[in-house]
Amino acid sequence: MTDVDDLGFAAVDIDRERRQGLPEVVYGPGKTPSQIASIVRSLLSHCTGPVMVSRISREGAAEVTSGVRDGHYDQEARMITWRPADRFQFQIAIVTAGTADGPTAAEATRTALSLGMGVTQYRDVGVAGLHRLLSRTDEISQADAVIVIAGMEGALASVVGGLIAAPLIAVPTSTGYGAALEGVTALLAMLTSCAAGITVVNIDNGLGAALAAYRLARSMARREQP
Amino acid sequence: MTDVDDLGFAAVDIDRERRQGLPEVVYGPGKTPSQIASIVRSLLSHCTGPVMVSRISREGAAEVTSGVRDGHYDQEARMITWRPADRFQFQIAIVTAGTADGPTAAEATRTALSLGMGVTQYRDVGVAGLHRLLSRTDEISQADAVIVIAGMEGALASVVGGLIAAPLIAVPTSTGYGAALEGVTALLAMLTSCAAGITVVNIDNGLGAALAAYRLARSMARREQP
Amino acid sequence: MTDVDDLGFAAVDIDRERRQGLPEVVYGPGKTPSQIASIVRSLLSHCTGPVMVSRISREGAAEVTSGVRDGHYDQEARMITWRPADRFQFQIAIVTAGTADGPTAAEATRTALSLGMGVTQYRDVGVAGLHRLLSRTDEISQADAVIVIAGMEGALASVVGGLIAAPLIAVPTSTGYGAALEGVTALLAMLTSCAAGITVVNIDNGLGAALAAYRLARSMARREQP
Amino acid sequence: MTDVDDLGFAAVDIDRERRQGLPEVVYGPGKTPSQIASIVRSLLSHCTGPVMVSRISREGAAEVTSGVRDGHYDQEARMITWRPADRFQFQIAIVTAGTADGPTAAEATRTALSLGMGVTQYRDVGVAGLHRLLSRTDEISQADAVIVIAGMEGALASVVGGLIAAPLIAVPTSTGYGAALEGVTALLAMLTSCAAGITVVNIDNGLGAALAAYRLARSMARREQP
Amino acid sequence: MTDVDDLGFAAVDIDRERRQGLPEVVYGPGKTPSQIASIVRSLLSHCTGPVMVSRISREGAAEVTSGVRDGHYDQEARMITWRPADRFQFQIAIVTAGTADGPTAAEATRTALSLGMGVTQYRDVGVAGLHRLLSRTDEISQADAVIVIAGMEGALASVVGGLIAAPLIAVPTSTGYGAALEGVTALLAMLTSCAAGITVVNIDNGLGAALAAYRLARSMARREQP
Amino acid sequence: MTDVDDLGFAAVDIDRERRQGLPEVVYGPGKTPSQIASIVRSLLSHCTGPVMVSRISREGAAEVTSGVRDGHYDQEARMITWRPADRFQFQIAIVTAGTADGPTAAEATRTALSLGMGVTQYRDVGVAGLHRLLSRTDEISQADAVIVIAGMEGALASVVGGLIAAPLIAVPTSTGYGAALEGVTALLAMLTSCAAGITVVNIDNGLGAALAAYRLARSMARREQP
Amino acid sequence: MTDVDDLGFAAVDIDRERRQGLPEVVYGPGKTPSQIASIVRSLLSHCTGPVMVSRISREGAAEVTSGVRDGHYDQEARMITWRPADRFQFQIAIVTAGTADGPTAAEATRTALSLGMGVTQYRDVGVAGLHRLLSRTDEISQADAVIVIAGMEGALASVVGGLIAAPLIAVPTSTGYGAALEGVTALLAMLTSCAAGITVVNIDNGLGAALAAYRLARSMARREQP
Amino acid sequence: MTDVDDLGFAAVDIDRERRQGLPEVVYGPGKTPSQIASIVRSLLSHCTGPVMVSRISREGAAEVTSGVRDGHYDQEARMITWRPADRFQFQIAIVTAGTADGPTAAEATRTALSLGMGVTQYRDVGVAGLHRLLSRTDEISQADAVIVIAGMEGALASVVGGLIAAPLIAVPTSTGYGAALEGVTALLAMLTSCAAGITVVNIDNGLGAALAAYRLARSMARREQP
Repeated sequence: MTDVDDLGFAAVDIDRERRQGLPEVVYGPGKTPSQIASIVRSLLSHCTGPVMVSRISREGAAEVTSGVRDGHYDQEARMITWRPADRFQFQIAIVTAGTADGPTAAEATRTALSLGMGVTQYRDVGVAGLHRLLSRTDEISQADAVIVIAGMEGALASVVGGLIAAPLIAVPTSTGYGAALEGVTALLAMLTSCAAGITVVNIDNGLGAALAAYRLARSMARREQP
Repeated sequence: MTDVDDLGFAAVDIDRERRQGLPEVVYGPGKTPSQIASIVRSLLSHCTGPVMVSRISREGAAEVTSGVRDGHYDQEARMITWRPADRFQFQIAIVTAGTADGPTAAEATRTALSLGMGVTQYRDVGVAGLHRLLSRTDEISQADAVIVIAGMEGALASVVGGLIAAPLIAVPTSTGYGAALEGVTALLAMLTSCAAGITVVNIDNGLGAALAAYRLARSMARREQP
Repeated sequence: MTDVDDLGFAAVDIDRERRQGLPEVVYGPGKTPSQIASIVRSLLSHCTGPVMVSRISREGAAEVTSGVRDGHYDQEARMITWRPADRFQFQIAIVTAGTADGPTAAEATRTALSLGMGVTQYRDVGVAGLHRLLSRTDEISQADAVIVIAGMEGALASVVGGLIAAPLIAVPTSTGYGAALEGVTALLAMLTSCAAGITVVNIDNGLGAALAAYRLARSMARREQP
Repeated sequence: MTDVDDLGFAAVDIDRERRQGLPEVVYGPGKTPSQIASIVRSLLSHCTGPVMVSRISREGAAEVTSGVRDGHYDQEARMITWRPADRFQFQIAIVTAGTADGPTAAEATRTALSLGMGVTQYRDVGVAGLHRLLSRTDEISQADAVIVIAGMEGALASVVGGLIAAPLIAVPTSTGYGAALEGVTALLAMLTSCAAGITVVNIDNGLGAALAAYRLARSMARREQP
Repeated sequence: MTDVDDLGFAAVDIDRERRQGLPEVVYGPGKTPSQIASIVRSLLSHCTGPVMVSRISREGAAEVTSGVRDGHYDQEARMITWRPADRFQFQIAIVTAGTADGPTAAEATRTALSLGMGVTQYRDVGVAGLHRLLSRTDEISQADAVIVIAGMEGALASVVGGLIAAPLIAVPTSTGYGAALEGVTALLAMLTSCAAGITVVNIDNGLGAALAAYRLARSMARREQP
Repeated sequence: MTDVDDLGFAAVDIDRERRQGLPEVVYGPGKTPSQIASIVRSLLSHCTGPVMVSRISREGAAEVTSGVRDGHYDQEARMITWRPADRFQFQIAIVTAGTADGPTAAEATRTALSLGMGVTQYRDVGVAGLHRLLSRTDEISQADAVIVIAGMEGALASVVGGLIAAPLIAVPTSTGYGAALEGVTALLAMLTSCAAGITVVNIDNGLGAALAAYRLARSMARREQP
Repeated sequence: MTDVDDLGFAAVDIDRERRQGLPEVVYGPGKTPSQIASIVRSLLSHCTGPVMVSRISREGAAEVTSGVRDGHYDQEARMITWRPADRFQFQIAIVTAGTADGPTAAEATRTALSLGMGVTQYRDVGVAGLHRLLSRTDEISQADAVIVIAGMEGALASVVGGLIAAPLIAVPTSTGYGAALEGVTALLAMLTSCAAGITVVNIDNGLGAALAAYRLARSMARREQP
Repeated sequence: MTDVDDLGFAAVDIDRERRQGLPEVVYGPGKTPSQIASIVRSLLSHCTGPVMVSRISREGAAEVTSGVRDGHYDQEARMITWRPADRFQFQIAIVTAGTADGPTAAEATRTALSLGMGVTQYRDVGVAGLHRLLSRTDEISQADAVIVIAGMEGALASVVGGLIAAPLIAVPTSTGYGAALEGVTALLAMLTSCAAGITVVNIDNGLGAALAAYRLARSMARREQP
């Protein structure tokens, strides 16, 4: 089995980059810093693209990056990245309902930038003050893809979806309390949006939204190649 | 016990009108047409205000009204009303997201009209086509109270709540499928709205929303009396 | 976009006061004290009415108020307020089932007072000892609006709703254990109340209940102006 | 195995009466009329006490009673009973919130009567019109046990529980719609009642409530025997 | 209002003892030790029976009992009791599935003893080793009432319910993990027991089970008085 | 792709028998009788073992078997089978709580017999009458595997699991009402059983339980071959 | 308001095509055939692109198309379409787990074709027979976008997501029973897929998946225009 | 009662080994180290087989093993074992989706080894990188039983179930976030697997899976004895 690097505690998929052209992102929770460092080393040596670790605390990140050089830690995003890709022509608009949705927006942004896509952020434009969004609609509609991030009732996804034609990936967040059910309400609301053609990822999953955009970017790029 | 009319199968609260100034509305399901007719007769004879029966089929209504005269059946609302109140100065805007929310809007409208309040309806102005709502905002904001009725993700309540200062009663409906969970998603979304000071009633409960507006109208009227 | 103050991490809605006549309340969770201080400063300078921060700890509040003067911290309510409004003629009765519902009652009270409304509290009058409530009913029924706060099974809302005709806003709380499901049971119970015309807000949302009352007070005031 | 009558499709527990002094009640759903008839015949011949079939339609009952004589069908309760027990000294108060809870009350009543207990019914005394209940409290408190039956938010159980000291068995019903969740809301509310020492049975389970009262009656009777 | 002692933060129901003959138990969570001490003092001076505080930590209890003498703290039960009642003739069997259900059993036991009832405990007799229960069945069946306490799947309630005729109060506990859903699975299972006439209280509610037994004991005592 | 028979609407897996030695069972719902007939014909011609269709009505079965000969319809099990396997040495005990669990037991039985395993059924031995089970325990413990089928609270699985050492597959059924939640309660209860080493399949999935037993039988058989 | 055609019961959004370039699809449930016909006529006259009605029965469709000519009814998809768009260069692979997922696949296919996209279907390639999928992987990976449709546990989305780099839209279906919870299980499973960058739409929402692909196709097309 | 060792706080089932041939495993949570030590001592003296304590922290384990010698603590598995059984001929393949599922795999492994079964582990072979699994399929299919451990969407169980004929016990884990619902999603997905004959145990229940395998091993062994 030459396309796996078996570390005992992990069978690193060093073939994904070749097979799919997608990066293997290391999900931090449930792994020790030294396990993470070993996996990252394996990916850095067997692959050629960007390497990322998600959902890692400042302390864990310090331990990992002391063992594997040249990693960059983004605290708001809670991610470490190595070897970011060259910038190519694909622009994402990341639209956020409130300040508390910031960490998810940061995770999506950091992932997108590491993969070579461009990002413009539109933060705190929730529907309670609709003019904040309406004044930006034309600008947002220029993007190749739009990521909408919102907690509570998640209505922002429906409103943006009714205004803009670009591919729209909605990310519910766990912002809110009581009937917000830790993000489940926003998730259900986005899935039942009255705006057509919206897609949804897991609660707080900024990373997944950026990767979904990357699949799209790659599909476009393939067509554009002569 | 002189403030109850005991029919055996029902102890009719003939005192509510005097005690609260609120009508006793007969909830149809689980009662036979003849039971309903008896209760209505009791209310018509012991009280002086409007009498209403909710959630009753065309067939059931025909049976009831053949036995108790002068009832008016509103098919879309599935209600029968007797002795509607005189019109007084209180205007409700009823704002509906889609065509399928019509029966709930009809129930709220019929209840409000029977109690003497005025109603203007704004149907099918859901957020997927936001311009439909925005062009009506100034008009809607003239109302004394606003009832917003929406199924699916219920985002209309948040958008109206962010545009208009009037008292806002949100009614989730069971419109939708799958993750709409028969109205639970719209209910949860309205309860966690990012717009401030919105209140919510049960799924498909147009009647309750109109009665909540009536409590408000009466509270205003009391203040305005010299 | 002149009606937004863009702070980077937040796009402050400095237009709400003009647009809706409603205050922009700063929701504390997910924001750092220095972010909160910046938002408050922006609101104090661009608007003229009261400014409030909700759900903030004593420590966070100390940090915010050391940077923005004249803020008043109410510990039971976990709120800071600046520039409270002048008292006007509108009286709210806040009725609470048990001692553990105190913080939600305090949040509703502090919000109402900051907006210029009057409040009378009736604490610990849950239905297990009904005489505590019945002896106060006449007094409560004088209020322009009633806020009923209860956890566990939330039955107090139904009982008050059957006794009093004023507009009634029910607030479920997360008081209780096991089948109380952190407030979900009280929420569902209030939504399905057998008393007519009751409206409901999110679990523990004393702030929202007071703002709903404020919408009502403003709607009344508008009518009363010559 | 002499204490079982094996019919192939059923192993009839003909020993329960001797072992526990409790009747073996035949639960109708999922059995054909002829299966039910066979089981009833077995119980009638091997036991000496009352025999009951629950949740059976008028049609099914006709078929069963044509094959096994002397059965009495109570349509509201949907039960057939044979060989009712002699009346003994134990009085149950059955208190019902609304007309739609009637079938559950009928099931509890028929079961109790068949077992020899006395029943007084207080129907349609829900908390929305509290005076209906308060005027009966002294009378209800004379009972040896109280069964409270309510749907929607089930608040009646808490109110009765705070007024009366007798053993209280609460039965939630599936009356209501939307957030009533087919009886789950009333069930949860009764389980989290602020009134102390209330016990609860399954949704619509009038039979179970009456059997719980019978356990109690028998325990009392045993003590009273010289 | 002479039957309430109004402490500001609490309206102590000093009438329950006279009205219902049931004690007013102070629920600890959400109250400070000094609030609890005030309430207890009020109850000790206005009433004559036992006074209890539930769900209080060792530290909180130390603070309360230093201010209000003669309180006894039971650590496993997390209760303080003052002025326990004289022992009268009523015996409860408390049957527990596993060692982890101990605190709930202790709460039920302490409550029962404080109210003057006798208790025999049968701990750790869960259905996985059925012989532990079967050898005790005859003894358990002598009790006036049985309280069955179990977490996980709660099957013990059904098995005891099929063996013994005494009144049976089932208490689900939050013991278990994963699909045990913090006691909800045991709760649902007990409510749908195939054994007839079982009643259920809230998760971990040993106190409520003992109070339910006390209602029963009082009802028996009333009958037995000449 | 030679190991698939592509019928357009279905890609029949004619390789499973060779690949896994397990039969390809045709799940009836969502397929027309003529689609089912085509799939069955394909399996009969490309494979050599038994062919089964599950969850098919009497009418649907009549249509299928008129087109594909030699099928046997078992009405209680709602299955059609062709070419049943020769009987081999493996005995399953199928233990059922109540009469209403019969169809699931029939599905498990029919599947097992068609695959060549032996079955002994123990019907209606639920825990409410424990002696019915205890008198059969020795006999049941002779089986190579035990399938326990129960609805409501599903306690039978725990009791059998504590008495018998054989592999135990528990099948929750949708028998019951209210808090039984259409089988979810029994499912959760079986998953959290206090008896060790019990495994569970989906609600009403008698077929799956029999196939799980068949995997086991084949694993044994493989070891026993010289 | 010139961009809305107000029919009274509906405010037809005749501006969406111009505003977003997306079609306004008429959702059938909750509308009468004559209401649908009116809306379709409005769209046909005010817009220039394709017009579609979803989730309509054969009978309803007959009534609509008798009034509005040139509509084409696709029975498996339950859709009517008028004026399908010209074919353009964008290819979707629609991959389906089982035969019962057919109607959802048909809805996605019909929508895509009506909008001018190409579709290749891969039906009945669920993971239980993995070779059916693996032999098609290379072919599927040529598509510009992939729609994966599966019920039950929805594992097909994860497997395809790990093999193919194209944009992947997962559609859970309500296929299955018991713990499948009418599609909720597949929905949750797809949202938590271990394969990166997958997006999800509502249960049985083939239409939404096709529209999401269309947003993507249009975004590509815009870039490709000189 | 000679087959129980009554320690007061626990009634140790010292008869299980004789009765069922299964070990009595001590579940750690809710017991103090000294209670655990007493129970272990009882089992070591009255039984002859292996003794195990599960879900115990390093600190708790140190306290227990200082009091009861010769215990071995496996930190990843959080188990202590005494007197492991002799190795016999039965081989389990334990297949794990990701690194975070390690502790559950360790618990299953330690339990199996203590009972004398052989284990081969296949870690981190989740379906996102299918080649990791496919290259091991032949090897895995040699096992007498397979335990598949996965969190998130749990798709690995379905894929392995479609490739391998051995008895398959699926263990959902609480790995994941948001819509993973702490393991409930994986649990539901495994229960509704499209692969036939899979069985499931509780979330994170590695111990239960190993004991299920042991029941199977013993059943095989019994047949193989001459």
